[in-house]
Amino acid sequence: MLSNKKKYIVNRKSGIKAQIQFADQKQEFNKRPTKIGRRSLSRSISQSSTDSYSSAASYTDSSDDETSPRDKQQKNSKGSSDFCVKNIKQAEFGRREIEIAEQEMPALMALRKRAQGEKPLAGAKIVGCTHITAQTAVLMETLGALGAQCRWAACNIYSTLNEVAAALAESGFPVFAWKGESEDDFWWCIDRCVNVEGWQPNMILDDGGDLTHWIYKKYPNMFKKIKGIVEESVTGVHRLYQLSKAGKLCVPAMNVNDSVTKQKFDNLYCCRESILDGLKRTTDMMFGGKQVVVCGYGEVGKGCCAALKAMGSIVYVTEIDPICALQACMDGFRLVKLNEVIRQVDIVITCTGNKNVVTREHLDRMKNSCIVCNMGHSNTEIDVASLRTPELTWERVRSQVDHVIWPDGKRIVLLAEGRLLNLSCSTVPTFVLSITATTQALALIELYNAPEGRYKQDVYLLPKKMDEYVASLHLPTFDAHLTELTDEQAKYLGLNKNGPFKPNYYRY
Amino acid sequence: MLSNKKKYIVNRKSGIKAQIQFADQKQEFNKRPTKIGRRSLSRSISQSSTDSYSSAASYTDSSDDETSPRDKQQKNSKGSSDFCVKNIKQAEFGRREIEIAEQEMPALMALRKRAQGEKPLAGAKIVGCTHITAQTAVLMETLGALGAQCRWAACNIYSTLNEVAAALAESGFPVFAWKGESEDDFWWCIDRCVNVEGWQPNMILDDGGDLTHWIYKKYPNMFKKIKGIVEESVTGVHRLYQLSKAGKLCVPAMNVNDSVTKQKFDNLYCCRESILDGLKRTTDMMFGGKQVVVCGYGEVGKGCCAALKAMGSIVYVTEIDPICALQACMDGFRLVKLNEVIRQVDIVITCTGNKNVVTREHLDRMKNSCIVCNMGHSNTEIDVASLRTPELTWERVRSQVDHVIWPDGKRIVLLAEGRLLNLSCSTVPTFVLSITATTQALALIELYNAPEGRYKQDVYLLPKKMDEYVASLHLPTFDAHLTELTDEQAKYLGLNKNGPFKPNYYRY
Amino acid sequence: MLSNKKKYIVNRKSGIKAQIQFADQKQEFNKRPTKIGRRSLSRSISQSSTDSYSSAASYTDSSDDETSPRDKQQKNSKGSSDFCVKNIKQAEFGRREIEIAEQEMPALMALRKRAQGEKPLAGAKIVGCTHITAQTAVLMETLGALGAQCRWAACNIYSTLNEVAAALAESGFPVFAWKGESEDDFWWCIDRCVNVEGWQPNMILDDGGDLTHWIYKKYPNMFKKIKGIVEESVTGVHRLYQLSKAGKLCVPAMNVNDSVTKQKFDNLYCCRESILDGLKRTTDMMFGGKQVVVCGYGEVGKGCCAALKAMGSIVYVTEIDPICALQACMDGFRLVKLNEVIRQVDIVITCTGNKNVVTREHLDRMKNSCIVCNMGHSNTEIDVASLRTPELTWERVRSQVDHVIWPDGKRIVLLAEGRLLNLSCSTVPTFVLSITATTQALALIELYNAPEGRYKQDVYLLPKKMDEYVASLHLPTFDAHLTELTDEQAKYLGLNKNGPFKPNYYRY
Amino acid sequence: MLSNKKKYIVNRKSGIKAQIQFADQKQEFNKRPTKIGRRSLSRSISQSSTDSYSSAASYTDSSDDETSPRDKQQKNSKGSSDFCVKNIKQAEFGRREIEIAEQEMPALMALRKRAQGEKPLAGAKIVGCTHITAQTAVLMETLGALGAQCRWAACNIYSTLNEVAAALAESGFPVFAWKGESEDDFWWCIDRCVNVEGWQPNMILDDGGDLTHWIYKKYPNMFKKIKGIVEESVTGVHRLYQLSKAGKLCVPAMNVNDSVTKQKFDNLYCCRESILDGLKRTTDMMFGGKQVVVCGYGEVGKGCCAALKAMGSIVYVTEIDPICALQACMDGFRLVKLNEVIRQVDIVITCTGNKNVVTREHLDRMKNSCIVCNMGHSNTEIDVASLRTPELTWERVRSQVDHVIWPDGKRIVLLAEGRLLNLSCSTVPTFVLSITATTQALALIELYNAPEGRYKQDVYLLPKKMDEYVASLHLPTFDAHLTELTDEQAKYLGLNKNGPFKPNYYRY
Repeated sequence: MLSNKKKYIVNRKSGIKAQIQFADQKQEFNKRPTKIGRRSLSRSISQSSTDSYSSAASYTDSSDDETSPRDKQQKNSKGSSDFCVKNIKQAEFGRREIEIAEQEMPALMALRKRAQGEKPLAGAKIVGCTHITAQTAVLMETLGALGAQCRWAACNIYSTLNEVAAALAESGFPVFAWKGESEDDFWWCIDRCVNVEGWQPNMILDDGGDLTHWIYKKYPNMFKKIKGIVEESVTGVHRLYQLSKAGKLCVPAMNVNDSVTKQKFDNLYCCRESILDGLKRTTDMMFGGKQVVVCGYGEVGKGCCAALKAMGSIVYVTEIDPICALQACMDGFRLVKLNEVIRQVDIVITCTGNKNVVTREHLDRMKNSCIVCNMGHSNTEIDVASLRTPELTWERVRSQVDHVIWPDGKRIVLLAEGRLLNLSCSTVPTFVLSITATTQALALIELYNAPEGRYKQDVYLLPKKMDEYVASLHLPTFDAHLTELTDEQAKYLGLNKNGPFKPNYYRY
Repeated sequence: MLSNKKKYIVNRKSGIKAQIQFADQKQEFNKRPTKIGRRSLSRSISQSSTDSYSSAASYTDSSDDETSPRDKQQKNSKGSSDFCVKNIKQAEFGRREIEIAEQEMPALMALRKRAQGEKPLAGAKIVGCTHITAQTAVLMETLGALGAQCRWAACNIYSTLNEVAAALAESGFPVFAWKGESEDDFWWCIDRCVNVEGWQPNMILDDGGDLTHWIYKKYPNMFKKIKGIVEESVTGVHRLYQLSKAGKLCVPAMNVNDSVTKQKFDNLYCCRESILDGLKRTTDMMFGGKQVVVCGYGEVGKGCCAALKAMGSIVYVTEIDPICALQACMDGFRLVKLNEVIRQVDIVITCTGNKNVVTREHLDRMKNSCIVCNMGHSNTEIDVASLRTPELTWERVRSQVDHVIWPDGKRIVLLAEGRLLNLSCSTVPTFVLSITATTQALALIELYNAPEGRYKQDVYLLPKKMDEYVASLHLPTFDAHLTELTDEQAKYLGLNKNGPFKPNYYRY
Repeated sequence: MLSNKKKYIVNRKSGIKAQIQFADQKQEFNKRPTKIGRRSLSRSISQSSTDSYSSAASYTDSSDDETSPRDKQQKNSKGSSDFCVKNIKQAEFGRREIEIAEQEMPALMALRKRAQGEKPLAGAKIVGCTHITAQTAVLMETLGALGAQCRWAACNIYSTLNEVAAALAESGFPVFAWKGESEDDFWWCIDRCVNVEGWQPNMILDDGGDLTHWIYKKYPNMFKKIKGIVEESVTGVHRLYQLSKAGKLCVPAMNVNDSVTKQKFDNLYCCRESILDGLKRTTDMMFGGKQVVVCGYGEVGKGCCAALKAMGSIVYVTEIDPICALQACMDGFRLVKLNEVIRQVDIVITCTGNKNVVTREHLDRMKNSCIVCNMGHSNTEIDVASLRTPELTWERVRSQVDHVIWPDGKRIVLLAEGRLLNLSCSTVPTFVLSITATTQALALIELYNAPEGRYKQDVYLLPKKMDEYVASLHLPTFDAHLTELTDEQAKYLGLNKNGPFKPNYYRY
Repeated sequence: MLSNKKKYIVNRKSGIKAQIQFADQKQEFNKRPTKIGRRSLSRSISQSSTDSYSSAASYTDSSDDETSPRDKQQKNSKGSSDFCVKNIKQAEFGRREIEIAEQEMPALMALRKRAQGEKPLAGAKIVGCTHITAQTAVLMETLGALGAQCRWAACNIYSTLNEVAAALAESGFPVFAWKGESEDDFWWCIDRCVNVEGWQPNMILDDGGDLTHWIYKKYPNMFKKIKGIVEESVTGVHRLYQLSKAGKLCVPAMNVNDSVTKQKFDNLYCCRESILDGLKRTTDMMFGGKQVVVCGYGEVGKGCCAALKAMGSIVYVTEIDPICALQACMDGFRLVKLNEVIRQVDIVITCTGNKNVVTREHLDRMKNSCIVCNMGHSNTEIDVASLRTPELTWERVRSQVDHVIWPDGKRIVLLAEGRLLNLSCSTVPTFVLSITATTQALALIELYNAPEGRYKQDVYLLPKKMDEYVASLHLPTFDAHLTELTDEQAKYLGLNKNGPFKPNYYRY
C-alpha cells in the first residue's frame, strides 16, 4: 500500500465526510500524456485521518477567497513574510488541530523532550516536501525543536490543509503550500524552498521524489553540501534505486518505506482493520458465512484473511509464491486458482501488486451481487477498463460503489472503481502516521550525524537500531513494559543491551 | 438490542448518510410526561439498512409538498383510493427498491414459491403495524401471496419510506403511513386499518404494541374474531406478558422476539460485526493493542468480545451472573470489577441491559481520551445525565461523537450520547431483517392454522419446528447443504425426519 | 459425551499409561442378551484423570493378592470392619491421592468451609454408587463434612482405585468396592450399602441407575423414607424419565447431567481441548493445513471445530438441524454433505449422537491415510462393524490406533475402534470433574432441604440458582471477580441480588 | 529450537513410549571438562517422530546381543560387507519403516521422479553424518536416486535406529552406525566413512559439525576435492561462521538452518502445536481461563501465544526487543515485565534463547502449582540449578514432571527439568522433517552444480529460489494449487515466471 495515497477530507461544519478520490498515478501516466494533465491528476490526496475522533477534523473552507496566494501580501504576527499560504488568518484554527495531533503522536513529543539538552539536528537545514497536515506539522515542529531549520512545500496539489499551513507560517516556518495549487504553483513552491538567498539546505526530506528531482535538474551543485535524502514513498524509493543503479546518486539516501515497523503497520496491522471498515462503509454487508477469495498472501493479504476469518467468512487464497502459499495453508486457508472458486464467491479482494489479476473473463463468471475490490498497491489489479464496454451498464449507487450490470441482469458491485479500498473507503489511524513520522525524524538524525564514511552514495534501509527505537517510542501508548537485558544476559547473547537485538535477515 | 430501534437514512441524491437519531423510549417516558411529547419522541427510526449495497438506498424527498396526505385526494392506477400515502406518484421508485430487497430476502421469496399451490393464509385478514420499508414491503406482499388480505399502518412516525408506501398502495395494499406523521396522524392511520366497513381483521402483526393497545382500548369486541397476535419487539412482548399476568390477554400471542434464530442473529452475530463498525465510523480508532472493558457477557457481550479479541484488543469482562462469568473465563477474558480496570482502559462498552453500569465516579476516573459507548438495550447503562454538570464542557466533534471535557483538560469520548451504538452508528444487514420477517410470516401461519386448543390465551414462543424452518430457508444464501436423516437414524434418535431436532431446553 | 464413560488408568510404578477400554453399553445391550455377559461388558471405566499433573497418578497393583475381598477379614485402625475393600493397608497411599485431589477441587473445599456452622446435610443418610476415585473421595468426605452419613459402592466393576477405597474405609466410610469385581460382587456390594440393620437411607446418589434399579426391585418400601435421587449419567437420567413417564417414579429425582455448567464443560470447553489432545497422542499429526470434516455441530462439534480452525485446519461441517447448520455458517465453516468432501478430507470426526453417520460406503471412498474418529456419545457413529470383512486387513499400529487396509493398499486410520476418542485417548481435567462433583453435592442439599411440595414425583433440572452457585464456586480458580448488583439495579431488573439472574429459557 | 535435538523412542512391542532425554550441550560443556564425558553427554537424541501414526514406530530391541558390531562379521545378501550395523538381519523390519516414511515424504519422492532423466548428483560422492532414522533413510536413498554415492555415519551415539541402518546396509549403502556407540565407536564410524581406499568424497552433509571437524583435523587435504558443506544444525552453523570469520573455511558452506521454510516450520508452525501437546501430555491441565506468561515473542513465542490464546488462556508476554514487543501488543497480548505477573500466573513458558530468564527469585514468588517449562533453544532459560538447594524437595511425579516443594508446602511443577518441552514431551511431525530433508537435498544439488565462482569460501543461505522450490514440493500435501504468472504479469513485475518472487529482505 502506497503510503502517499491517503484519503478522506472531513468537513466539520456539516459533520459529513466527503470522499475525494483521485486516480492512481500509474494508470494516468499511460492515459494522459500531457505534462499538465498528468501532474494534476497524478497527485493523490493524502490527508491523513486519525486514530481517534478529534483530529478526524475539518477546516474552514475559504472558498470565497479566489485570489491566488502568490498574489497576496501576507505577514505573520512577527512581521515575517517568508511563506506563502492561503490565508495567514486561519492560523489559530490550524494551531488547534496541531495541538490535538500532538496528543496522538507521543513518540514525536518524546523525541522533543529527549532533545532538550542535546540538539541532534543543530545546524541542519532541511528542505521538505510532504503532505501538509496536522500530523506532518507535528513532525516539522519536532525537527525544529531538535535544532533544525526547515523550509517546506507540499508534495500534492490538493492535500494541503490551509489552516495548518497558516499555523506553521504564523509560528515562523517558511511554508509554501495551499490546497488547489496549479502545476506551475507546485514547482514554484518547491523552488521557493530550495532557492533562497542565504539558504543552503543540507538535508532533504521527500515524499514522492519531486523535490529531489527538482534539485537534480535545477541545482545539481547543491548536492555538494547535502548530507542525505530521506524518502518515504514507494515511488520515490523506486526512483532512488534507479538513480543508484545508474550511478547518478551523489549523496546517501535512506529508504524509510521498507523499515520493519512501518511496513508491518502500513500493511499487516492496518489492513487487518481497514478491509472490514472499507467493506462495511461501502456495502453494509454481513461478513459471517460469506465466501471470499483473497488474491495474494503478502502482508496485506495476511491482514485481510485474518480479519475475515475472524468474522466468520470462509476465505480462499490465491498465490504465485510457493512460500507464501504454504503459509496460507498452515494458517488454514484453501489455496486455489481464481478460476476454481470464481463462480461461488461473494467477495473478491486483490492484494497482489500485480496487474490484471481479475480479468474480464473472471468478472463474466462471477455470480450475481459479487463484490469486487482492491487492497493492493494500485488500480491495475482488477481490469476495470475491460468493463467499459457497451453491453454493460454502470450504475453509481453510492459514493465509491458502482453496480456493473450484465445484459442478463447480473450485477457485480465494484468498489472505488478498482482503486485502493483502504484509502478510498476507510481511514488511516493516526497511530500509523505517527510511526511513519517518527521513522522520518530518526532517519534525518541518523544521516545528519553519521560519521564520515558510514554511508556512501547509495540507498540504505533505516539501521535496525533506529527501527527498534521507533518501536520503543510507541510502546507507552499500550502501557507496554519492555524487559531489559542484564549484563550477564547481554554477554551470553553477544548483544549490546540497547540493541540492535536481531541479525539483519531476521524476519519478525 | 431492541429490534425495533433501527437506524440510518441514506439520501441517494447527495450520496451522503444523514443519521437521524431518536431518544430511547424508556428515558423519554420518564422525562416527558405529556402524551404528545412522549409519542413523538418515543418513536424510533427503524429504517433498515441492508446486507448489501443496493438497497441501502435513498428516496426522493418531496419536501416541496407541504399538504398533509390526509387532505389529498389520491387514486392508484386501478382507481382505488383506499390508502393514504405521501405521494402515489412515487410508486415506481418504491417498486424498484422493493425489487432490490426481494433479491436479498430469498427466504420470503421461497415461501411465496412454496405457497403457490396451498395458500396457508387464505382467509386471513391481517392488520399490521410495523416500520414501512422495502424489507417489510417484501413481507407484506409475501403475506398477500400466501392468501392473506392486509391493511397496514406505520409503527413509527418517522420511519416510513414514502416511495415504498406509494408502491404498496399502487399495487392495491391499503397502506396508511407517511414520513413525519403527527401524533394524531399516527392514531388516525392505525384506526383506518382497523375500523373499516366490511373488514373484520382476524390476525394482528404488531411491532411495539400500539396497534394491539388501540384495539384493546377502542374495539375490544374485535378480539372475538381474532385468532392471534404476533409481536416482534421487546417492548411489545413485555406488554403482552403483563396483559397475560393480569389475565387480560384474550387471544393467543406469539413472542417472535425470543425465537432462537432471531436472537442469535440480532445479538451475537450482528453485534460481532457492528461493534467494530460503530467504533470505526465514529472514531477511526485502531483496535490492535487497545485495552477494552466489556460490561456484560450475554449474547451481545460475547459478540463484542470475540470481535475485539480477534482484532488484537486486550479485553476485560465484567459480569453479575457467575455462569456467564465462567464462560468469559473459559473464552480467555479476565473477569474483573469495573473499578479494577477503569483507570487503564481505552474503551468502555456496556452490554448489560442494566442501568447505571457506568457511573459518574467511573467516568471521573477514566483516562484521557477514553471512549465510552453502549451496545445494550437502552440508554440507561451509562449515566449520561451525570455528565450534564456545569464544570464539564461538552463538545460535539462529529455526528454521534461528543467530547466531554473535565476542568483539568481530560476528555472522554462519548458515542451516541449513550444510546445504542449499533443502531446509531452502524447498520443492520438485510440478512438479519430477512430472518425477522420470515419469523413473523411463519408465526402468522402457525397461529392462523393451529387447531383449536393448541394455543390458549397466553404468550408463546415460536414452535421449534418453525424456528428450524426459518433457519432452513436461509441456508441457501450460504450454499449450505443440510444432511437428511435416514429412516433408520430417525428411528434410532426417536426423531421425526423433518424435526424438531432438539428438546426445548437445548441451548445451541 | 457420556459423563460416566471416562478413561485412563495410570500406573505410577512404571510411569506408563495403560488404557483400558470398554465397549459401549448400548451396543452391548443389543448384542449380548445374557445378564452376566451384558453386565460385565456394559460397565465402563471412568477413572478420572486430572487437570494437573499430580493426581494423574497411579496405584499399587497388588496383583499378587488373589483372595477375594469378600473372603478377607479386615479392620481399620479404629477397629471397624464395616467395609469391604481390596487391602486396608493401602490406605496411606490413597490418603495422599485424596489430599492432592483436594487441592484441585477448591469448590468442594469451599463448601466444607461454609458448612462449618450450619450442616445442611445433618441427618442425611446417603447411599451412593459412583466411580471410586480420589475425586469422588473428596466429594464423599465433603458430604460427610456437611453432616451426612454415607454408604458407598462402585458403579463400575473396573474403575475402583483400591488405595482410595482403603483410605475411605480407614477414615470410617463404609465402602464396598474393589477393582475387578465380578457381576455377583457388584450387586453384593450395592446390597451391602442399602440393606444393613439400623440403616435407613433417605437420599440416593447414583451414576448409571443401577443402585436405583436395585432398590426398586428389592426394597421398594424403602422409597417411603427417601427424599430424592440425584442422577449423574445420561443413561441413568434416561431411565428416570422412563420411570416418570410410566408413572412409576415415587420420589423426586434430579437430573444433574443437564445443568448448564456441567454441559458446557463436559462438552464445549472440554472437547475443544481433548480433540487436539486425542489426535496428537494417537497420531502425532500436524493440524495446520489439514482438511477436516466434523459431523455434527452441537456443543461437542462446536468445540472440535473451534479448536481445529484455530490450529490452521480447514474445517467442513455436516448437520441435520438447520439452526445448528446456520450457526456453523456464521462461525465460518462450509456446511456440506459428507459425500461432497469425503474424498478430499484428511480427518473425519463424528459428534452427532447418531448411528451410522460414517458408513462403509464413505470409508471406501476416503483417501489413503485418512484418519477416522468419534467424539460423539457412543460407538455407533462410525459403522466399524462394516470394516470386519475378509478383504480388509486390520493392523494394530499403536494402542488405540488401527490401520484398516484395502486390497489396493489404501489405509484408513481408525482411532479407538470408533469409541470415544476423548475418553479413550485423552484425559478429563480435574476442573471438569470438580464441576460435576459440586453439582452433585448441591443437588443433594437442595433435594434434602426442599420444603414439602417443592418437588413432586418427577425429574427436575438443578434449579438455576444452584447452577449459578456451582459456577460461582469455581470462579476463584481463575482469580475472577464477580460484580454485584446494587439495590437500585436489582430493582430495575426485577432480580434478586443473589440470583437467579436469567429466565429458564436463557441459552447462554 | 535446535533442529538436532529431537526426541522420543517408541517401542512398538509394548505400545509404550519411553522418553530418553539428554542434557543440553552447552551446560555439559561447562560442567564436564573431560573429552569423553563431554562427548557422551553432549550427544542428544534426535530420533524423529512423525506426522502420522504409522512411523511413530518402534523397533526390535536386540538387547540380547551384546557383541560389539565392530567385532562382528556381517554380509548383506549381495555379499557386501562394507558397512557396520547392529544386525543385518533386521533389514526387513527397517525396510518396512522406510516404506512407510516414504509415503509421508512426498517431496523427496517427487525429487526422485523428476531426477529420472537427469541425475543432478551424478558423480557426487557424499559423506554424511546425521541421525539415522527412517526419514533420513528416505533422504539417503533419494540422494542415491539422484546419482550420488554416499557413505554415512550417525551424528548421535543413541539415535540410530538399528533396523533402518540394517535396511540401508542391505540395499548397498555403506552405513556405519548403531544405537549405543561408545565415544571411540563414534569417531571410528566417522572415519570409516571418510577414509576408505578408492573413495574421495566431494560433498559433506553434516548435522552438528563433527564430521566436518574430523576432516579438518585428520584429512585437511581432502578439502581440495570437496565442493561444499551442507550443515543443518544451529551448533554446526555457528562453528562454520566462526571458521569463516577466522579465515579457515576453505570450501563453500550452506547454512540450511536459516532457510525461510525450515525456520517457519521448525518454529512458528511446529511450536503452535507442540506447546499444547507438551503441556497436555505432561500435566493433563485445562488451558481455558489459565493465566500464562510467555517470555520472548520471536517465532517460537508467537506460536505458543497464538495457540494458548486460541484455547482460551490469558497470555502475557515479556520481550527485550521493542519491535517484537510492538507486535505482541498489536496481536493482543499485554506486554509486561516478568515480575509484574509472576505471582498470578498459572504457567510460565520461556522462548528467548537467553539464560536465567526465570530466576530463583521468580521461582520463589510463583504461586502454588505454577507450571514452569522451556520452549527455547537450550536448558539455560530457567535457572534450574538454583532449585538444587537443601530446603527444596524434589519429587518426580511422572516422567518429565518434577514437583519442587518449598518448606511452606508450595509446589511448582517443573517440566523436563527445564530442557526443551517440545522435544522432551511432544513429537515432531514428519511434515517438518520432510521440509528439512528436502532442504538438505536441494542444498547439496545447488552446491554440487554451481558454476565456478558462484560460491566462495564462505557460509551461504539457501538461494531463495531453492527455498521456494522446497515449499512448492510440499504444496501437493494440502491439495494446494499455485497460480502461475502470465508473461505479461511477469514482465510488469520484473520477475522471472519461475521465481524467485521476493527480494532478499522480504520478511514473509
